Amino acid sequence: MPEAHLHRREALREHLRERELDALLVTNLLNVRYLTGFTGSNAALLVHAADRQGDEQRTAFGTDGRYRTQSAAQVPELERVIERPSAEALVAWAAKRPEEYRRVGFESQHVTVDGLDSLTEAAQEVELQRAPGMVEAQRQIKDDAEIEALRMACAAADRALVDLLEHGSIRAGRTEREIARELENRMLDYGAAGPSFETIVAAGANSAVPHHRPTDTVLAKGDFVKLDFGALVDGYHSDMTRTLVIGEPAEWQREIYEVVRTAQATGRAAAVPGAEVISVDNAAREVITQAGYGERFPHGLGHGVGLEIHEAPMLASTGVGTLTPGMAVTVEPGIYLAGRGGVRIEDTLVVRDDAPEILTLSSKELTVA
Amino acid sequence: MPEAHLHRREALREHLRERELDALLVTNLLNVRYLTGFTGSNAALLVHAADRQGDEQRTAFGTDGRYRTQSAAQVPELERVIERPSAEALVAWAAKRPEEYRRVGFESQHVTVDGLDSLTEAAQEVELQRAPGMVEAQRQIKDDAEIEALRMACAAADRALVDLLEHGSIRAGRTEREIARELENRMLDYGAAGPSFETIVAAGANSAVPHHRPTDTVLAKGDFVKLDFGALVDGYHSDMTRTLVIGEPAEWQREIYEVVRTAQATGRAAAVPGAEVISVDNAAREVITQAGYGERFPHGLGHGVGLEIHEAPMLASTGVGTLTPGMAVTVEPGIYLAGRGGVRIEDTLVVRDDAPEILTLSSKELTVA
Repeated sequence: MPEAHLHRREALREHLRERELDALLVTNLLNVRYLTGFTGSNAALLVHAADRQGDEQRTAFGTDGRYRTQSAAQVPELERVIERPSAEALVAWAAKRPEEYRRVGFESQHVTVDGLDSLTEAAQEVELQRAPGMVEAQRQIKDDAEIEALRMACAAADRALVDLLEHGSIRAGRTEREIARELENRMLDYGAAGPSFETIVAAGANSAVPHHRPTDTVLAKGDFVKLDFGALVDGYHSDMTRTLVIGEPAEWQREIYEVVRTAQATGRAAAVPGAEVISVDNAAREVITQAGYGERFPHGLGHGVGLEIHEAPMLASTGVGTLTPGMAVTVEPGIYLAGRGGVRIEDTLVVRDDAPEILTLSSKELTVA
Repeated sequence: MPEAHLHRREALREHLRERELDALLVTNLLNVRYLTGFTGSNAALLVHAADRQGDEQRTAFGTDGRYRTQSAAQVPELERVIERPSAEALVAWAAKRPEEYRRVGFESQHVTVDGLDSLTEAAQEVELQRAPGMVEAQRQIKDDAEIEALRMACAAADRALVDLLEHGSIRAGRTEREIARELENRMLDYGAAGPSFETIVAAGANSAVPHHRPTDTVLAKGDFVKLDFGALVDGYHSDMTRTLVIGEPAEWQREIYEVVRTAQATGRAAAVPGAEVISVDNAAREVITQAGYGERFPHGLGHGVGLEIHEAPMLASTGVGTLTPGMAVTVEPGIYLAGRGGVRIEDTLVVRDDAPEILTLSSKELTVA
């Protein structure tokens, strides 16, 4: 993994030089983690454009006293400034070397209006310049270490679901909350540090609420049960949704399930390099619209996933950009019939040159539990 | 609870009038939750200064299509603008009524540099003005509904620890990770929605790392075991630390435990209305310094706790302000001897007119497990 962090910093430096910045002040903690591997709760990073792998004397890492030991272990290769507030301390550190840090970019998508005031004060002669989203742009395309973490996160979730199905845990008489907890515990058994977001288990009419929180609602025969959940492994989030039926499916259930299943397959097939994110959303949406349920699909088709559960690119009618090999995204169309029930089917996949690589492998056939 | 939200908005309006703002645009999601009870992942709120309870026609709530149903249930009393991006949509809504929204405050401690650009574009004739931390200031003093939630969160954590101790779960041969997971599961049994932060279980030399993540380290006789954990109930976070010894404590363990215990009691006693936060930190720190361990206590004494695990006020040498009845804070001194072990003892308490009310009630005697 440390090797990967060096490469990521190298790639960032190239972009910095293109933008004629001497350095980038990274304050988004996830971006710091991405570039260094540091997992504490407070840090900042100053990446100098002219440093190079093995000789990073002008690149510095900042955190506070709680993380002295941890940062020495996780970021041994960089100068460490142990002082609060970390971002201001790094800027002050740069301000002492004004000839080497003339123009320093900052993450204007992350630094607050008030935060910029205190950075500007610390900067003295250093010119701070907006440089929004540079690391996020880089993070859209996952490297091998990241895909491996995503694969493990997806596997933990897959295995947990298989366990529950094999043990008949999803059945009439149990509550949404019980099932959510069992899913989460099984994911921990399979190596997750935790759930990657609040597990959704939604039975019966609750399945028509796109983002439902598990309650003490008891599963009953004839219910749709929608499970939207994921595992967190090495900071990476998996995300999958499966919808089951308790007992024999009714005709309307078979119908909307089949529409969503086709839409999801269509969306997956559209997720190829060069595809506009809007067109991927459109491809799946068109299937649902043609079936007469267009208004029952009130959310985007999917989103990027990685160190955040929702990150760029967004596969939505409002999204921008095109897909590139190595992007990890979800594809998750749904149909929700208020008061009756809903279906969502979701995979996490990696865009590849040929067909996308699906990381969530549980069956998408209509499962009768 | 809805009653509480109305009162909180009323109190905010008073502050808005003092600052001659027509309204405040609330974009920090926790502040939106505090003022409305909305628990979704995307929302903003525009609170008009001249509205009043029962007649809030100029106060509007914004979210997106995923939360149409949920927001109707949780925020029925307010006009709802269902449009992304929510903050911009609310500002545009206000811009259509320029005579009523001349000066609108925004949370400059939360709005990003780039975010302000898009708000400014949406604002048209409306003047946006910095109004940092107004809701956070209000949130420092907890109302009865909040203290009740904190009490339940603290009780869930307390009971979980008592269970583990009664069942002999914390013993030589078990791993940090096993114990962390058991603690978390017991908290769920006692009504927690989840842990309030990543549970720390740190055995032996690991206990000398202030923020250690549970590993497969096996507990052994003679180890300190530091447990820092909490429960999340209705969005409120409890926070407590206890340190035990496996088997008979050594002399050095008794010594530093006693110093920390005295420092913690001293800190608690100093947490009275009117006390400067620095002086509370000082009071506890002085005990540790006098005992010769001043440099082994490298963090602040405590922090406010509520909808965030760390919020104002900070009880630290760099803190500002004084304590007021109703503030909920932690008091958590520690001594960490690298390579050997460390002790931290932490309570969550509410500042009261007389003595503080301690919400975490587990024993602070040196427990031999």
